[in-house]
Amino acid sequence: MTRDIPEISLQRLPVYLNYLKSLSGEENKFISSGAIAAALGMGEVLVRKDLAYTSSAGRPKVGYVRAELIAALEEYLGCNVKKNAVLVGVGGLGRALMSYGGFVNYGIEIVEAYDSDPAKEGMVIAGKKVCSADEFERGMAVYSPRLAIIAVPASAAQSVCDMLVAAGIKGILNFAPVQLKAPESVAVRNIDVAANLAIISSMI
Amino acid sequence: MTRDIPEISLQRLPVYLNYLKSLSGEENKFISSGAIAAALGMGEVLVRKDLAYTSSAGRPKVGYVRAELIAALEEYLGCNVKKNAVLVGVGGLGRALMSYGGFVNYGIEIVEAYDSDPAKEGMVIAGKKVCSADEFERGMAVYSPRLAIIAVPASAAQSVCDMLVAAGIKGILNFAPVQLKAPESVAVRNIDVAANLAIISSMI
Repeated sequence: MTRDIPEISLQRLPVYLNYLKSLSGEENKFISSGAIAAALGMGEVLVRKDLAYTSSAGRPKVGYVRAELIAALEEYLGCNVKKNAVLVGVGGLGRALMSYGGFVNYGIEIVEAYDSDPAKEGMVIAGKKVCSADEFERGMAVYSPRLAIIAVPASAAQSVCDMLVAAGIKGILNFAPVQLKAPESVAVRNIDVAANLAIISSMI
Repeated sequence: MTRDIPEISLQRLPVYLNYLKSLSGEENKFISSGAIAAALGMGEVLVRKDLAYTSSAGRPKVGYVRAELIAALEEYLGCNVKKNAVLVGVGGLGRALMSYGGFVNYGIEIVEAYDSDPAKEGMVIAGKKVCSADEFERGMAVYSPRLAIIAVPASAAQSVCDMLVAAGIKGILNFAPVQLKAPESVAVRNIDVAANLAIISSMI
């Protein structure tokens, strides 16, 4: 899907979704953009603009129907469409990701994982198999994943990225602390856990 | 430390640092802002502006001395100052973080972890003790951490955040998919792993 939403707005949609899903009860049947903005510490105009990408405007004086707004956000983020993902690198972080329950909220499932360590071959973590890198092409043929997660050491990340791109992966979430080179047609996002904590430390 | 650097520039400093550290050899003794920009797919003016926060300008036609630039970035990011951090929530992700080797590059050490599950009390992971939440105040007194990581389920994250703030924690890295309420004086950054993969999926 090609979208006209700016990436910066897209990034905030899960934040709205999480917040709206955390509410319950009859008193939260309706919610205004002002209430969402106040709860999340954002500006109201920004919230309204972001939400306009996914749904029709809230009604004056009443706001959005919360359930409808949740449905619109889930629809926009593709939460109801099942998507297969593969994982490369079954160290501590890789294992944690294989067991992580949060992906299912977005319709995403890690279907298989790969690791170059023969000792890990055949392991089953959270019901998912760990395979040798040799089996990657078979996995691609079976599951047709478009998404992949890289959780290998920095030194191996670029070659793993090249392999994923060559195999047809279109989106990569990279945990290795290295800037990957990939074609423009492949979406890459990086999560550098240690750098995030260092940034916080520099801010306080 | 209070800094005049914009957060958006601060966020890029670890990216430059990782890249510069990945190079080696006599041919990389000097590096220009143009070469850094090209390697990282950024604009040269942006790179020069970001780096100017941490170090004096590169020399015309020669560029930066790579080792000096690394040292300046490490100094700026406080990599050489040891900083204690605590972790709350020893599930799969918490365990992975306790074992993660990347923090040491920024001078950060997770010194102790806390979990409300009595079955986890007394566990030692990567040489660090898992304690009951009751021991949190003792840990604060012993280690004086200013940084904390939240790796508990979303439903528990706000109460953990409140506890951390009340105890004097100044910076929080939050992995729970929820927007935390904290005083302005406390720096909070969120990493929502599943949302990141969903965003990638929406981009492709």
